[in-house]
Amino acid sequence: MGKPAKAKRGIPSKVDDFNAWYPFIVEAAELVDKRYPIKGMDVWRPYGWKAMRQIDALTHSEMDRTGHEEVNFPLLIPEDLLEKENALVARLKRAREEGVDPDELRDEDEEAGFKKEVYWVKHAGENDLDIPMFLRPTSETAMYTMFPLWIRSHKDLPLKVYQMVNTFRYETKQTRSFIRVREIHFFEAHTAHANEEDATRQIEQDLEIVDRLMDKLCLPIIKAKRPVWDTFPGAHYTIGIDAVMPNGRTLQVASCHHYLDQWAKAFDITYENLEAKQQHVHQTTYGMSERLLGAVVGMHGDDSGLIMPPAIAPWQVVVCPMIRKNADVDTVAISHQVADTLRKSGLRVHVDDRDLHPGQKYYDWEIKGVPLRLDIGPRDVEQGTAFAAKRTGGKQ
Amino acid sequence: MGKPAKAKRGIPSKVDDFNAWYPFIVEAAELVDKRYPIKGMDVWRPYGWKAMRQIDALTHSEMDRTGHEEVNFPLLIPEDLLEKENALVARLKRAREEGVDPDELRDEDEEAGFKKEVYWVKHAGENDLDIPMFLRPTSETAMYTMFPLWIRSHKDLPLKVYQMVNTFRYETKQTRSFIRVREIHFFEAHTAHANEEDATRQIEQDLEIVDRLMDKLCLPIIKAKRPVWDTFPGAHYTIGIDAVMPNGRTLQVASCHHYLDQWAKAFDITYENLEAKQQHVHQTTYGMSERLLGAVVGMHGDDSGLIMPPAIAPWQVVVCPMIRKNADVDTVAISHQVADTLRKSGLRVHVDDRDLHPGQKYYDWEIKGVPLRLDIGPRDVEQGTAFAAKRTGGKQ
Repeated sequence: MGKPAKAKRGIPSKVDDFNAWYPFIVEAAELVDKRYPIKGMDVWRPYGWKAMRQIDALTHSEMDRTGHEEVNFPLLIPEDLLEKENALVARLKRAREEGVDPDELRDEDEEAGFKKEVYWVKHAGENDLDIPMFLRPTSETAMYTMFPLWIRSHKDLPLKVYQMVNTFRYETKQTRSFIRVREIHFFEAHTAHANEEDATRQIEQDLEIVDRLMDKLCLPIIKAKRPVWDTFPGAHYTIGIDAVMPNGRTLQVASCHHYLDQWAKAFDITYENLEAKQQHVHQTTYGMSERLLGAVVGMHGDDSGLIMPPAIAPWQVVVCPMIRKNADVDTVAISHQVADTLRKSGLRVHVDDRDLHPGQKYYDWEIKGVPLRLDIGPRDVEQGTAFAAKRTGGKQ
Repeated sequence: MGKPAKAKRGIPSKVDDFNAWYPFIVEAAELVDKRYPIKGMDVWRPYGWKAMRQIDALTHSEMDRTGHEEVNFPLLIPEDLLEKENALVARLKRAREEGVDPDELRDEDEEAGFKKEVYWVKHAGENDLDIPMFLRPTSETAMYTMFPLWIRSHKDLPLKVYQMVNTFRYETKQTRSFIRVREIHFFEAHTAHANEEDATRQIEQDLEIVDRLMDKLCLPIIKAKRPVWDTFPGAHYTIGIDAVMPNGRTLQVASCHHYLDQWAKAFDITYENLEAKQQHVHQTTYGMSERLLGAVVGMHGDDSGLIMPPAIAPWQVVVCPMIRKNADVDTVAISHQVADTLRKSGLRVHVDDRDLHPGQKYYDWEIKGVPLRLDIGPRDVEQGTAFAAKRTGGKQ
């Protein structure tokens, strides 16, 4: 903002070539290192991981506010558990294609498409495993195997749990950091309710959470019920949340599924209602991932690098002391004092006291998108001032 | 403490039968659910995960204090990367057995023992993978493949990174929650230094961190340099940190390895020193895991359930309003006010406003080991008092 687009120190132009700019910037800003020897599995570097953890912290806080509890399920899922899911999804898909009530159809042996997209563990040590296992692409199967053990009566409802875990997808298309990767830093909330209306209200709450989060991330979004052909076959309906990226494409950053009692029927998840009768629960899921960070990068960055929204900036302020040898005043000590003062008001502050040329420091923090940089030189110390540079333009 | 040992509501006696008490209590207190269909892979329930996250928070805070930065490496490691590690470990092991300098030995084709203990991914979707991958048992191989890309000059040292991730071990012995599991919630710090002395100082810092953490967890420990036969073959020396469990056995809860420059030589991790010469770095690692929680459970619990050290108690105080129908005073509202007041002083507080018999609530929080329970009845509201019960004994 406020600056003409220009190519700086080898940074491709975002406007002219977003597809070159994006992969360049995620590495140049040290969010990830793509040189790990498996395609689509990047190493999270400290700065990138800090930003992701800030996004996660916002999500944790929303989950806490809305009465969700955090769980952590095993990564590995035995293949035989998948049979229920496969049968369900195949039946629902066929019902949708044929335009009939799914209850009228019997299960067939068609396999769910995602079997083609999972990593398989069939060997451990020197043994062949009796039952192959796969790395979770998402956790419906793992969770809904346990839900019948946790839900007995209406008093156990609603059950609202979530987890933040690594999930896996054997992606065959071209990968892109945060946006299409093979190991995914993933958030998934799963809820079970007494009836359809309660589940519908949960979806409404999810969408309110989405609004609050996207506001913090400064991401304009479109929330839209997906057309039938784009609805997860296991879902009654799906609401996709898309960010519109600068290259004109939409990027799905979150999704909510209303499952009705379809999964509950497949996994036998029932509760005793007030009339002492067994009844199937109605379920929802709400998913997000590291794509949120990808959307932030793509939406806000410019030809000088990232622009971090203050709510998730790993450092909201970086203080750079001017280090001059033989100077009378200790700018480093003063900078740490300033940082402590700012920290007391709740800001995340870093002091860059590396003995580098100031221009190098400016470049580093500009490309990393730190919202505010304060430079403190010997004269500033005397005058009680600092030079302030906003990442979005404006200096004083 | 202060109570005679007695079997309560089916809880086995800890003194008489620790091996029955421990697995009973971890499920009864809802730390984990062991009914997930893979042996040694438990589901973390909300209360258990909250406790673990409190331990993690203490660790994060120590890492922050000591200048370690958090990273996150991929779970999967290609088999071919392992060759360097295998060759190194085999050579060091042989050198130790033969009592000679490892530099005098050439690499042989012996495989490191842990190949027998990993889960293999050799299939993805419908494809056989060209290069098999394994689930990390620990991350030396993954990290030291990247370190040469991150370390160029003495200015890049020390490099101090850590991660908290899931690791895997194909455990064939009997599994036990937190203590011997197949998916492990793991902490690992990896550092690289300019020379042996700096690495040695890092180990000293690690041991200081251990002291501070164990103090918070109220765990008495023994720190001891392992004898050669019990030292990880890849390490110059290993310091094991053991908690002494009530059944008399030691439980290793942390370990620090000094690697000298042995791994650096295998992975070609060098830096340019002040004389502009390439030199190998010296490395250390420091590992801990969910065993810390297992040690807390085993050390502090009694025949009534867990006893949570306040520093990691998910709830330090639980407020239980006495709910009487047709009462004039709203004990629930008052309880929430009391909770808010306590929260402002920094405590983690939960209000148990479930409509259950008080005895059931007491039992729940006793078995979960909440340090302090406050009961608030209608008369308490009038008198401005509360009934306080400490988990370790003492009521007023």
